[in-house]
Amino acid sequence: MLDKSKTYLIVGLGLLGGKYAQVLSQKGYRVTGITHSQSTLDYALRHEYICAGKTADFADLVQEADCVIFGLYPTVLLDWIRSYGDLLQPGALVTDVSGVKRGVVEPIQEMLPQGVEFIASHPMAGRETSGITHSAEVDFAPANFIITPTVRNTQAGIDWCRDLAETLGFKRISELTPAEHDHMIGYVSQLCHAIAVSLMCASDNSELACYTGDSFRDLTRIARINDKMWAELFLWNKDNLISEIDMFTNALLDMRKKLVEDDREGLEEMFRLSTKRREAFDKR
Amino acid sequence: MLDKSKTYLIVGLGLLGGKYAQVLSQKGYRVTGITHSQSTLDYALRHEYICAGKTADFADLVQEADCVIFGLYPTVLLDWIRSYGDLLQPGALVTDVSGVKRGVVEPIQEMLPQGVEFIASHPMAGRETSGITHSAEVDFAPANFIITPTVRNTQAGIDWCRDLAETLGFKRISELTPAEHDHMIGYVSQLCHAIAVSLMCASDNSELACYTGDSFRDLTRIARINDKMWAELFLWNKDNLISEIDMFTNALLDMRKKLVEDDREGLEEMFRLSTKRREAFDKR
Repeated sequence: MLDKSKTYLIVGLGLLGGKYAQVLSQKGYRVTGITHSQSTLDYALRHEYICAGKTADFADLVQEADCVIFGLYPTVLLDWIRSYGDLLQPGALVTDVSGVKRGVVEPIQEMLPQGVEFIASHPMAGRETSGITHSAEVDFAPANFIITPTVRNTQAGIDWCRDLAETLGFKRISELTPAEHDHMIGYVSQLCHAIAVSLMCASDNSELACYTGDSFRDLTRIARINDKMWAELFLWNKDNLISEIDMFTNALLDMRKKLVEDDREGLEEMFRLSTKRREAFDKR
Repeated sequence: MLDKSKTYLIVGLGLLGGKYAQVLSQKGYRVTGITHSQSTLDYALRHEYICAGKTADFADLVQEADCVIFGLYPTVLLDWIRSYGDLLQPGALVTDVSGVKRGVVEPIQEMLPQGVEFIASHPMAGRETSGITHSAEVDFAPANFIITPTVRNTQAGIDWCRDLAETLGFKRISELTPAEHDHMIGYVSQLCHAIAVSLMCASDNSELACYTGDSFRDLTRIARINDKMWAELFLWNKDNLISEIDMFTNALLDMRKKLVEDDREGLEEMFRLSTKRREAFDKR
């Protein structure tokens, strides 16, 4: 259980930061917030997602926080730590929500003051929407929560992060190294988004919209994408994503070759492999 | 309205042929059936999808049919017409369910006896499942029904095909040329299946199954695929499919180039284009 005598500061009240604030406040924790947007701050206060918050001159909020959660894009997060990290007090426990880990975790652990512990984590509960006004729609229960500890982390810090996830309502909590996390996310999330976006960009076939069925709609649902955030995520993980794109392209070009050569047996073999592998995914 | 005094013969009682038989029988039409499988025939008779049927020596069923619907794969359909087409009586109205049209429609119209009219059509209601035991799960109401007439068709024949679709429960009925149909289907259906299958074949990442979220599951749902049928469909439409694969691959490689070059603005531009185009699809 998380400690109810502590103060939880959320820096960045977007879709996920807003949801963290909402759930923790509802459960009776003391939650404060920092955001650059006055309308977001007003929304968070009005809906009692936070009990206090600021858009500037927020040194006091940082100094009095026992636990800090960063709901910022990776680049903004690094900038923030560079500018304000020294305000964090020894003993503070810190985590984030970033969708990439290698470029973020070690630099931040390096920069933070002595005695401040950063335990990185990734709540895999993103949606096509963004902003605090959509936070209420987020559902943590079916989503994965990944903790990515390093040698600098203590067991107490990792346990705190796990307690946080449970309090937020996550049922599937696991630990990966930052490198394992980024490899996994390159495949299960980023490659899928790269494919959906490329399919929409490939040609302007909007005159065919009336003929689309479930397959097309399912495949391209995630082509509605937050441009700033996804450019960040893709670039921070570009080595993994490029390697996944290459593996995928090879498979697609292999299929193309079989089409050119009228290799019916080869195509059927791909379809059987694909069916078998996909069934395994449904069993989990 | 379809004529209730006529006899409707379904040749091929698979997922779609079985559904046609089920709906027409339920609505009080006289439906007969031909299938190569004894167990399928038994199922169709037991569930009253047909009132009579055969697996062989079916000349009488063909000769007495006023309307014939072929629920066969394209290659099997062409073989069937070559072997038994002469049994069809002058005045008979004939259609099919094939997912490709150019290679099927004109050869069949060429082969059929004088006075037999073939009006090709495609009920876009396929599923991951196959076989008559799954027919009851098929829902025609939200699906597209495409009629692909040629200069050889009469208005009466086309009207009959439209009546058939309405009787079956289709709400979205349209007409395209066989070439337009195949171009459309290459994009909205076949390219999507090619992508999903390639993604599953690209690497054996089944150890990542526990981390997959909605995006991955949505994208690969159609990777469970009937190998025989889809090899048929892909090969009959290979020119269109190859050209769609090439357009898609170019877009994906363009994204890859932007990743390599750290072209953040270029990536964001792709994401905005993709979001805009995808929104247009949702509006229809």
